[in-house]
Amino acid sequence: MTDYAITIKTDEEKHVLNEITKMLSNHDVNITYTHLLVNSNDTATVNLEVEDVEDIDKLIDDIKTVPEVISVETHGSSYDIYGKRIVIMGGGAQVSQVALGAITEADRHNIRGERIGVDTIPLVGEAAIAEAVDGIARLPRIHALVLAGSLMGGEITEVVKKLKKENDILIISLNMPGSITEVVDLVVTDPTQAGVMAVMAIADTAIFDMDRLKGNNKF
Amino acid sequence: MTDYAITIKTDEEKHVLNEITKMLSNHDVNITYTHLLVNSNDTATVNLEVEDVEDIDKLIDDIKTVPEVISVETHGSSYDIYGKRIVIMGGGAQVSQVALGAITEADRHNIRGERIGVDTIPLVGEAAIAEAVDGIARLPRIHALVLAGSLMGGEITEVVKKLKKENDILIISLNMPGSITEVVDLVVTDPTQAGVMAVMAIADTAIFDMDRLKGNNKF
Repeated sequence: MTDYAITIKTDEEKHVLNEITKMLSNHDVNITYTHLLVNSNDTATVNLEVEDVEDIDKLIDDIKTVPEVISVETHGSSYDIYGKRIVIMGGGAQVSQVALGAITEADRHNIRGERIGVDTIPLVGEAAIAEAVDGIARLPRIHALVLAGSLMGGEITEVVKKLKKENDILIISLNMPGSITEVVDLVVTDPTQAGVMAVMAIADTAIFDMDRLKGNNKF
Repeated sequence: MTDYAITIKTDEEKHVLNEITKMLSNHDVNITYTHLLVNSNDTATVNLEVEDVEDIDKLIDDIKTVPEVISVETHGSSYDIYGKRIVIMGGGAQVSQVALGAITEADRHNIRGERIGVDTIPLVGEAAIAEAVDGIARLPRIHALVLAGSLMGGEITEVVKKLKKENDILIISLNMPGSITEVVDLVVTDPTQAGVMAVMAIADTAIFDMDRLKGNNKF
């Protein structure tokens, strides 16, 4: 394994991330994620995920030379622990039904060694959903998006088009009125099946190839 | 608003985060999140979230002076777009039922202006669940954890104790055999109610004060 999650506790919140990234930069590793938490007692916790690490022991020793650093721990990466994510957005009624299908199917794959999580957010209104869809590309580990509503189009459709152009995220929508069904990869009428298919499409343990559906992507 | 999400496209993936954090460090802002994506055409996308920004226009102008930077965009922070997160972990059967309650209740609060998302991961085995619970503190925006299984204890109980000591995350479990029910904040028998209560406890729009349950936390 060359990917690691590193948790660093430090004495002071500002500038420390700068010191640490400089150190990592010298090791020629990629930083794929950082998350800085400022604690109530004026210490800070820096969570990093790094790729392409040649010598983790040397890297940790070097981080410990930063004067503000109190402790350094390593963990499995968040990909190892939490795996791939599916996100379901839309109205509460539909989101919960798609989630039911997706969680039950994810369970079946995770039992066989996959790690697939199902994330949801019930949202109201074209602008809020469009903003949330647009932000998907900036979140880590997301492999599929299911749009679960009763009417979607306009700004949401434009954002989906942009997302499709710039990213590899699979996009499924329920069958509904609105232009959204014209721009997604797959349209599914039954919410349980939409959730199940989203998981099957991204699971390594499933035999379901989206490319074989070309020309027939409405169910 | 002094919190921003900034998306920076750059020419080259390594060392750029170092250059950018140095720049931010000079502006005396807190970096709360970064996510680095390496694109197929040898460009990279750096997503940052920053706090305590005094002059965002000056900050963006300064980032643009880094030679590798191609473009800089600002967005609402992920807290503004996706809000608070509840995580549900455990067996698929229970996780999906807790999710049903939580998503439906989150919908009711989000309609009134909250942003609450419900994230789930069905997992098998004491070690996998313990590792996932332990990692919660390293993920952003998590306010509550629901443990939804039929038997939990041992290593999971130890990790929950540690999490409680070091963090403010609310922890709810279903009523089940195992020592887990002795260390969580709240034990709920009905999975739908467990999901609903998790949302109510973290929602600003709900009148539900966990502190008023002291001495009677099993339902």
